[in-house]
Amino acid sequence: MIIEKMIVKTKPGIDIVNITDELRKIVAKYDIKNGMMNVFVMGTTAAIIINEDEIHLKEDFKKLFEDFIPKDRLYFHPENAYSHLRSLLLSPEKTIPIREGKLSLGQWQSVMLIEFGKRKREREVIVTVLGV
Amino acid sequence: MIIEKMIVKTKPGIDIVNITDELRKIVAKYDIKNGMMNVFVMGTTAAIIINEDEIHLKEDFKKLFEDFIPKDRLYFHPENAYSHLRSLLLSPEKTIPIREGKLSLGQWQSVMLIEFGKRKREREVIVTVLGV
Amino acid sequence: MIIEKMIVKTKPGIDIVNITDELRKIVAKYDIKNGMMNVFVMGTTAAIIINEDEIHLKEDFKKLFEDFIPKDRLYFHPENAYSHLRSLLLSPEKTIPIREGKLSLGQWQSVMLIEFGKRKREREVIVTVLGV
Repeated sequence: MIIEKMIVKTKPGIDIVNITDELRKIVAKYDIKNGMMNVFVMGTTAAIIINEDEIHLKEDFKKLFEDFIPKDRLYFHPENAYSHLRSLLLSPEKTIPIREGKLSLGQWQSVMLIEFGKRKREREVIVTVLGV
Repeated sequence: MIIEKMIVKTKPGIDIVNITDELRKIVAKYDIKNGMMNVFVMGTTAAIIINEDEIHLKEDFKKLFEDFIPKDRLYFHPENAYSHLRSLLLSPEKTIPIREGKLSLGQWQSVMLIEFGKRKREREVIVTVLGV
Repeated sequence: MIIEKMIVKTKPGIDIVNITDELRKIVAKYDIKNGMMNVFVMGTTAAIIINEDEIHLKEDFKKLFEDFIPKDRLYFHPENAYSHLRSLLLSPEKTIPIREGKLSLGQWQSVMLIEFGKRKREREVIVTVLGV
């Protein structure tokens, strides 16, 4: 049982920060062979995603959320409802297998934090590992 | 290893029920220090979400799903396809860290069951905890 | 701690493949009584979903993604951005409780792999079980 708190610095949204290397370092540091890693961001206007970290694709990710949930629509919740709604469609957490001493990601899979808030933040990400 | 079944009473959808206090009680009852909690609703027209429990924001959550997946559109599946589709965009489960004896949620994060079904229900929610 | 790799054959997207029976066999094979199962697809254009496996409803699932994220729109990422975006709205993984020797799914819940890629694939799915 390992729990680590990471701080991830983000720019005003939409910002996408690849945290895969930090997660891989935790697997190596504790020499985990097999298990599960849960990655959880402690915020309501950010999310954890797993997909390809490619510059044009990340522009598509941003445009998708800007189109679906525009900033300038009227919402019931004042100020930043759009940031909450965008996060709601994703999730604050992902659980990832660890296998043969490695984070078991596919060739194109990166774990990323997506920031939907409107100011720069220091996001707390809790990484929990169960395994042997 | 702890498994508890909770019953969550819901009103016809869209209803949002905060279950964070019940989850915190499970952590306290078994005196878990560190671990992972999985929260899973056994239904195809409901989901588990984590976001802010604020009255206006919850109206925005409801409107988002009513706009994206309207009740009165024609679907292939008769009757309640819209309830299934709304659930599909979310997920029946979330996994949450437990850290230093507490559910490791951010200041504004609540765990909520969202009911998309069209009648009142008693939803079975399975809470599984792995930890020490 | 059990980790198994499954290969799931898919047709060009959108294809939905029910893998619940294979997951149930893993629970039975290792005689797990209580625990958590994580199901993770190692790809960026596929996802794991839990909902009802009903033929008309699956047509609605497909239409939802075809409507929201059309194939023929212009994207920044060439070729298959739509496949990535559709996967992003879902997730590559789900974590499911095992209770009293069984996968704790509701009556209508099936675990399915949804293929958004445009060619047939052999998808690697990692199934990790923690339990007793």
